[in-house]
Amino acid sequence: MIFGVGLIGGSLALALKRHSRIGQIVGVGRQSDNMQIALDLGVVDAVAQDAAEALQGADIVMIAAPVAQTADILRSIAPHLTTSMVVTDAGSTKSDVQHSANTLLGEARVRFVPGHPIAGAEKSGVTAARADLYDGKNIVLTPDQHTDPDALVSVRELWEAAGARVTTMSAQEHDGIFAAVSHLPHLLAFALVDELASRTNASQLFDFAASGFRDFSRIAGSSPEMWRDISLANRDALLRELDAYAEELRSIRALLEAGDGQGLQALFERASQARTAWALKKENVIKH
Amino acid sequence: MIFGVGLIGGSLALALKRHSRIGQIVGVGRQSDNMQIALDLGVVDAVAQDAAEALQGADIVMIAAPVAQTADILRSIAPHLTTSMVVTDAGSTKSDVQHSANTLLGEARVRFVPGHPIAGAEKSGVTAARADLYDGKNIVLTPDQHTDPDALVSVRELWEAAGARVTTMSAQEHDGIFAAVSHLPHLLAFALVDELASRTNASQLFDFAASGFRDFSRIAGSSPEMWRDISLANRDALLRELDAYAEELRSIRALLEAGDGQGLQALFERASQARTAWALKKENVIKH
Repeated sequence: MIFGVGLIGGSLALALKRHSRIGQIVGVGRQSDNMQIALDLGVVDAVAQDAAEALQGADIVMIAAPVAQTADILRSIAPHLTTSMVVTDAGSTKSDVQHSANTLLGEARVRFVPGHPIAGAEKSGVTAARADLYDGKNIVLTPDQHTDPDALVSVRELWEAAGARVTTMSAQEHDGIFAAVSHLPHLLAFALVDELASRTNASQLFDFAASGFRDFSRIAGSSPEMWRDISLANRDALLRELDAYAEELRSIRALLEAGDGQGLQALFERASQARTAWALKKENVIKH
Repeated sequence: MIFGVGLIGGSLALALKRHSRIGQIVGVGRQSDNMQIALDLGVVDAVAQDAAEALQGADIVMIAAPVAQTADILRSIAPHLTTSMVVTDAGSTKSDVQHSANTLLGEARVRFVPGHPIAGAEKSGVTAARADLYDGKNIVLTPDQHTDPDALVSVRELWEAAGARVTTMSAQEHDGIFAAVSHLPHLLAFALVDELASRTNASQLFDFAASGFRDFSRIAGSSPEMWRDISLANRDALLRELDAYAEELRSIRALLEAGDGQGLQALFERASQARTAWALKKENVIKH
């Protein structure tokens, strides 16, 4: 069963429905109109009113609600978990979720497998859900030394059935990687747009902003609440990333101030080559 | 006549050819095979071997070569300019070009009108040239108090005939605006990719980088030589932008370190609203 039938949870349901051996998918969500749409669209087979009802007979419990609700959901399901049930989630940070599960699930915590699907789209909500969202995408699972091996296998097979490639690493390693390649870029884009928007000539500046600005700043249009939660959840790793980046900017500033064209070109070349190599390897995988 | 028949110069030629009242367009370029292609494609009507030949009977001289060549081109045309000829350029920075023209063109400097078309595409070269590249795009012209009013009118009409919207401002104002909305974002993207690429776990990091990183870093794949030249040409304004941005990052770091979710959310909301408003106004204009 799936808590939160939006883009992430709904797409998982649709992806699994491509396989005949998948049983019933039950959805739970806070917005009853959204759950009715999920039912009407055939994304879920049934809708449950609460955790107790939803968990009856469940094999795997997927938490795909906004991360700020994860602790509340864990608390609500804890009394109803049986020893045959596996719990997993789809949040963007993992150390904090592992910590919540350890605190709130009691004995059942060994059957909680934190997960993070590296997939998304500009649209959100169940109407944006797509059966192919996870095809070829990375899913990171972050078991620790207490995680039940059978629970890990169950969650791995779930995502593989949805078409994804599963990688495992520690929650700490996960959070370090995503602080660098996702959370930091979001903060940098928010920072640029906020800084420009605060100026007296902001409207003139924005009038001349073109395609470079458009691409760079696209992620500054992301959900403020979601990025507040991610930033706070991954604060320590993100602070380290901000410091490393500030140090890099100081190096560039020194090259520029010294008029060191050779040094600037060398730095731009390293970046350009790395970006081009990355794009060659990845652009055909990342469609959204 | 046009010095440099690549994407920028070639697209201008094609755009002007849509009008019957445009006379002959002569191209000059350093690569003879590229000039032959320009001729074969009908982008230019004739190819000249050198500045002296190219300028015979020219009304407007457009310099659309890489900016590092601008001073050499101004030096080469200076002896051949008559009082009826108007000179303009298409470089990304304007104070430096105005300074070169003032130094190198003698009396003819009053008929030099610095220009910057705010248009580009991922591809370059004459084969990427398109008649509609400038349709509805911004062109900034930066005359100063010495600029001949008739020369300004000629260059304005040239760009309007190519389908563009012409704005005038001082070279200093231009360079300040583009330091903020274009040059700084390029440096920030180069900085992120260079910083990540320098790490021992770079390949792992890049393996998990997804669509947010893709958009943010796309401009880090830009030409290192071009961005070395732009950075140095606009050094003072860019240093000011780097300092303002570093200050903004320090503010974000302080909010994050303090765990100030409300402060982070307020900042992200300001950025998200500004980015969304910008996109609504501009996305239909910016296609490349």
